[in-house]
Amino acid sequence: MSIPTILFIVVELIGTVAFAMSGAMTGLKYKLDIFGILLLSITVALGGGVIRDLLIGRIPPMMFQDYKYLLAAAGTAAVLFLIAKLAKNFYHANEHRIEVWTNVFDALGLGAFTVTGVQAGIAAGHGDNGFLLVFLALLTGIGGGVLRDLLVQRMPLIFHKRVYALADILGACVYIFLIRRGLDVVLVSAATIALVFTIRMLATKYHWNLPKAE
Amino acid sequence: MSIPTILFIVVELIGTVAFAMSGAMTGLKYKLDIFGILLLSITVALGGGVIRDLLIGRIPPMMFQDYKYLLAAAGTAAVLFLIAKLAKNFYHANEHRIEVWTNVFDALGLGAFTVTGVQAGIAAGHGDNGFLLVFLALLTGIGGGVLRDLLVQRMPLIFHKRVYALADILGACVYIFLIRRGLDVVLVSAATIALVFTIRMLATKYHWNLPKAE
Amino acid sequence: MSIPTILFIVVELIGTVAFAMSGAMTGLKYKLDIFGILLLSITVALGGGVIRDLLIGRIPPMMFQDYKYLLAAAGTAAVLFLIAKLAKNFYHANEHRIEVWTNVFDALGLGAFTVTGVQAGIAAGHGDNGFLLVFLALLTGIGGGVLRDLLVQRMPLIFHKRVYALADILGACVYIFLIRRGLDVVLVSAATIALVFTIRMLATKYHWNLPKAE
Repeated sequence: MSIPTILFIVVELIGTVAFAMSGAMTGLKYKLDIFGILLLSITVALGGGVIRDLLIGRIPPMMFQDYKYLLAAAGTAAVLFLIAKLAKNFYHANEHRIEVWTNVFDALGLGAFTVTGVQAGIAAGHGDNGFLLVFLALLTGIGGGVLRDLLVQRMPLIFHKRVYALADILGACVYIFLIRRGLDVVLVSAATIALVFTIRMLATKYHWNLPKAE
Repeated sequence: MSIPTILFIVVELIGTVAFAMSGAMTGLKYKLDIFGILLLSITVALGGGVIRDLLIGRIPPMMFQDYKYLLAAAGTAAVLFLIAKLAKNFYHANEHRIEVWTNVFDALGLGAFTVTGVQAGIAAGHGDNGFLLVFLALLTGIGGGVLRDLLVQRMPLIFHKRVYALADILGACVYIFLIRRGLDVVLVSAATIALVFTIRMLATKYHWNLPKAE
Repeated sequence: MSIPTILFIVVELIGTVAFAMSGAMTGLKYKLDIFGILLLSITVALGGGVIRDLLIGRIPPMMFQDYKYLLAAAGTAAVLFLIAKLAKNFYHANEHRIEVWTNVFDALGLGAFTVTGVQAGIAAGHGDNGFLLVFLALLTGIGGGVLRDLLVQRMPLIFHKRVYALADILGACVYIFLIRRGLDVVLVSAATIALVFTIRMLATKYHWNLPKAE
């Protein structure tokens, strides 16, 4: 395998594990059983990618052609469930710490999926359709989380989590801009992930808000 | 461009702006920030069309091949946000008037999307599958609104908004009936939009209800 | 028509009617009008199949190529609506009995759709991708029910209905295992439906629970 291929796999796996953690944490919060937690983790980790693949006609979606992502998501959920099972009252005793770490992993996952969303669009032959690429990055990045929130019946976090979708869109624009200048894909991917991650962390720390009407 | 092509674009733009208004109004009601309002407007205006395109295999969906609809939806949302920002307490001071106008635009959008739903099905080679055409009209017309309601966590309006989906289905049947008689597409489109719009307005004015079991 | 073809149709019709009943019952519970009940029945009965068809590229989905399933779902909803209309206070007077029978039909539908999900995957040329086949069975079996729960704004039942998704997955695995051993498709289908149905009935009777973290 070439370096970019390996990079793509590593980045996608990081995003998958990070988002699966966010799904499992949500499942623990809502006191779902082991199967509900598995299902929610897989939905967050792979749901955005499935929507993206449907839009670009990658049939059947990647998660059904290559199982390592599903196994990574299911494994993450299983490990978290076991930890929660062994450590009594795990979720509520560690609620604040879990929220902090979920947020960190979520920011990492968002960065990773921004990159893979754009790369999937380019691989499907839409490299010259910048707008589609940005939208694919957005769907890959936020799609799973929106499905998670719909399934547990709460207002999608992207509507009140500071500059969440915006960080994804900015990252996608930067990726497209740099890759079109001929820069190395490994470098561009790393820069994009770092950018999205940094924006999300700063937004959390400094409570950045987007304007509201009133 | 031919007259039918221009007509199709005009009708689709009317529906897009009308539905984007309905999305933005909902966003203001739920006090979302500027990005949430943009996202909701785009979802209402273009979500039904994306579902329709997936069902007929138009990959990637039209909104990614032609940006004027997205720009129309985003522009509509931005203008409404600015108005609400400048006029203090805009939504609540004008709640009744906004509801009335949203309803009018929504009826117009429903008529327009009924027409474009059927036309998209015919263009994809399903002209002889009347049932599919009606269903595509329905999905194009109500899909965006259902997604909007799911995202803000409320029971979809189509379940209690009087004869909403029925107006769409009737309009689609009339369109298909007339177009198969060889009538002019401009005429048939105008008649369908007028029909759907009139049914919706009358249903609102006279409080038409469909029967319930008890 | 060959025996397997007829069997496939019969099984799919059983599942369709059973799931349409579950949708109509939910509509009566939430006091929807006749159109809402129709829409909900069709969504439960055919929604999972549409998602499955999108994932394997069967465009347009089967429900638009063959109307008997839609007619079966709509007819079921109409009959139940009429019964509820004629028998005053139908839903609340019979709530317990309705729940019991809905559960029985739902178990039958789940078994039937587990079979058709796997068969659709094999027919689309994915016979050697066992994981995809299981996932297609799961989506066909639970997809409609999840859409139903999202539309009426409640936590999806699969998250707390005992071993629901697990029965589907087990059934799919058994089907794939037996069919690959060269057994007769009629026999394998019947065995799978019986297995899924039995698991669901036993889980209800003996209150089987999956483990929770705390």
